[in-house]
Amino acid sequence: MKNNEPKDMLGRVKLTPVQEAKSTLLQALSTIRPSSHSCSLAESAGRILAQDILSPEDLPPNSRSTMDGFAIRAEDSFGATNSMPAYLEIDGKVKMGVMPQGNVGKSKCFHIATGGIIPDGSDAVMMFEHTIPIDERMIEVVKSVGSGANVIQCGEDIQKGSPALSRGHLLRPQDLGLLAGIGIAEVEVFVKPRVGILSTGDEIVHWEDSPPSGKIRDINGIMLTAACKKLGAEVTDYGIVTDNEDLFLTTVRRAAAGNDVVLFSGGSSVGMRDLGEKVIEKLGNPGIIVHGVALKPGKPVLIGLCHKTAVFGLPGHPVSAMVCFEIFVHSTIKHFAGLRLPEPEFQPTVRAKLDRNLNSAAGRLDLIRVQLQKQKNGLPTATPVQGRSGAISTLARAQGYFFISETSQGLNKNTEVEVHLLT
Amino acid sequence: MKNNEPKDMLGRVKLTPVQEAKSTLLQALSTIRPSSHSCSLAESAGRILAQDILSPEDLPPNSRSTMDGFAIRAEDSFGATNSMPAYLEIDGKVKMGVMPQGNVGKSKCFHIATGGIIPDGSDAVMMFEHTIPIDERMIEVVKSVGSGANVIQCGEDIQKGSPALSRGHLLRPQDLGLLAGIGIAEVEVFVKPRVGILSTGDEIVHWEDSPPSGKIRDINGIMLTAACKKLGAEVTDYGIVTDNEDLFLTTVRRAAAGNDVVLFSGGSSVGMRDLGEKVIEKLGNPGIIVHGVALKPGKPVLIGLCHKTAVFGLPGHPVSAMVCFEIFVHSTIKHFAGLRLPEPEFQPTVRAKLDRNLNSAAGRLDLIRVQLQKQKNGLPTATPVQGRSGAISTLARAQGYFFISETSQGLNKNTEVEVHLLT
Repeated sequence: MKNNEPKDMLGRVKLTPVQEAKSTLLQALSTIRPSSHSCSLAESAGRILAQDILSPEDLPPNSRSTMDGFAIRAEDSFGATNSMPAYLEIDGKVKMGVMPQGNVGKSKCFHIATGGIIPDGSDAVMMFEHTIPIDERMIEVVKSVGSGANVIQCGEDIQKGSPALSRGHLLRPQDLGLLAGIGIAEVEVFVKPRVGILSTGDEIVHWEDSPPSGKIRDINGIMLTAACKKLGAEVTDYGIVTDNEDLFLTTVRRAAAGNDVVLFSGGSSVGMRDLGEKVIEKLGNPGIIVHGVALKPGKPVLIGLCHKTAVFGLPGHPVSAMVCFEIFVHSTIKHFAGLRLPEPEFQPTVRAKLDRNLNSAAGRLDLIRVQLQKQKNGLPTATPVQGRSGAISTLARAQGYFFISETSQGLNKNTEVEVHLLT
Repeated sequence: MKNNEPKDMLGRVKLTPVQEAKSTLLQALSTIRPSSHSCSLAESAGRILAQDILSPEDLPPNSRSTMDGFAIRAEDSFGATNSMPAYLEIDGKVKMGVMPQGNVGKSKCFHIATGGIIPDGSDAVMMFEHTIPIDERMIEVVKSVGSGANVIQCGEDIQKGSPALSRGHLLRPQDLGLLAGIGIAEVEVFVKPRVGILSTGDEIVHWEDSPPSGKIRDINGIMLTAACKKLGAEVTDYGIVTDNEDLFLTTVRRAAAGNDVVLFSGGSSVGMRDLGEKVIEKLGNPGIIVHGVALKPGKPVLIGLCHKTAVFGLPGHPVSAMVCFEIFVHSTIKHFAGLRLPEPEFQPTVRAKLDRNLNSAAGRLDLIRVQLQKQKNGLPTATPVQGRSGAISTLARAQGYFFISETSQGLNKNTEVEVHLLT
């Protein structure tokens, strides 16, 4: 052999660094705008807003008490202490859910509970705990409060006309709460991304079938389907195709026509990989945009864009396929779901200490699967899960993964690593 | 006032520390065993295994090549180099998906692609890249490989009879892949947790209704429903009940009878809170197990266990309700979903730097909502979202939260904090 330069499986030397491949992909995707539709608020959780929402009203619509106590004129409490209390006459009671009747006069107060509307004349709430009852009509106030104390003002949560949520925002439970509070019952959201999935290879049978001698069950199909559904995608199964070029091209073309994203996997052999490249190029422009990456596992991934469909040729080895899914397909599906890219901006991790020395080749990104173990003191330990990228059990045993960067030749035992959980 | 000891809203001084409250809750839940049922593998993603699974077969069922190249007897390559190559005769080709025909003899080899079954007589695969073709029948081998090189052995991924996944394991996409690979089409999983939700208060109307003067829309109902569904729970809506004790008791009793978890919220006023306590105690033993916690926001939470149903009286303020959900209800739902507790063992976070000084009262756990901002260099900054616990917009604006512990009186600007994302 001539040298040790990184090579793809055809002996080509050009492997794209992962960050560059991802930028190329996101750049290409940025020209495709996902479409949107109207959705009832109750069904919108987990979807991405396709509109900016301004609040149509003040929340709360009235100034309300945040404590149980007495609605007072704050100035009536000024200077009050335990030794020099102020005396207030109980002149009424705020009923929940209706506008208060009457007016709080000087040196008077109204009973009020949390959530009660502040009656006219009053501007603060004195907590029960800072009062001493004298009799049924009179209290001692032993603390001074300022105007607005224990009151949430009309519009303090959100004001009429001000921005509530903006386009590109993921609708979480609390966002539904806010929108419900301001009376929004329908929202415009981006349509669910559609993903078509097929597995390739003459040696593969459907996982529910009993494989005849020499064949094996498809692992990638069910795994990638579950991964896509977890991201909110609608998945169409295009089954298993053999390496007949015409059948393969016809099936991928049909999948590309009906979906935002197409995933085919299994093309790890040179023949299948050649076929995958050919098929992506035939589907439409711009065709292949990334052609193998400096990543282990996951090197032989093909990334293409054909008209408005992203097409991924994932490695056949299940671990490699899943790694490429995490790094490239995940963001692509999120893009078609309407999330603002680059995404995710912030990736939460668990800090852990590597429990052994680990070698790595410079020039490629290594993804290391790990098990985590809590320790009595200090950070948990991260134990690499050994095994080939063809061994799916290694990924089932792993709780997470971390990266060793392209510039590193390895990590020493006890190095702190940031572990992404596989959940 | 007598003193400054922490008090609950009734002036009682006993507030349970959060960790103690959580331990009490998990301890009480540990006596309840969720039930299980059979589920097709394709539908089992996100569910929790209720059985230990041993592999019924070897995966892969045959030794297979992990590279494109030639199946050889390893010993025929011993000592081979560029200057002193070994010569092998191409004596056959392994077809994909069928058992190979024939036997690899001494100084002979078979063409083989990735995934092809290792033919009898051979024990290693020589990669194409380390061979030079002489003619159609002969290759030069320029590298020495050991026995087993580029071969995944029969059963190397998982052996027949060895543990695949165990009871209490969350089924992720890769776990479905493993189970599909070993021919498991049905799994025993725990049933989906059932949660009943009601909102209380005379001032509350359903969020889809237009509130008459003095009333406000329910925020907690839709928010808590979405939060429960996100965890895989089946939610029943018991609507909005007023603070009529009989109606309240009847409704909560009905909800408790049909669910694993009941959430009612809105009881922030003393009256509603008293009512909540009374109702939980009337439902059954052991009744209330946690009675207010040293937490801000979220202090007035009630936690009860009535027969086999966990009943939570959540604060009416939406932020407080959501905080109590994150800290207490989340684990409870996961328990009923069958996950091994204590859970989650590892909480992934984003490291950030606090962008200001922050005060906190010792003796209680503070949950600080934050926005995150990427920085050109170093960690992102965390900016606290100011606002009352009644203001849901503060939670919609927040990207995450961090804690200030009971022993801290505050944090200085630039302190590193671990932010839990709100996703």
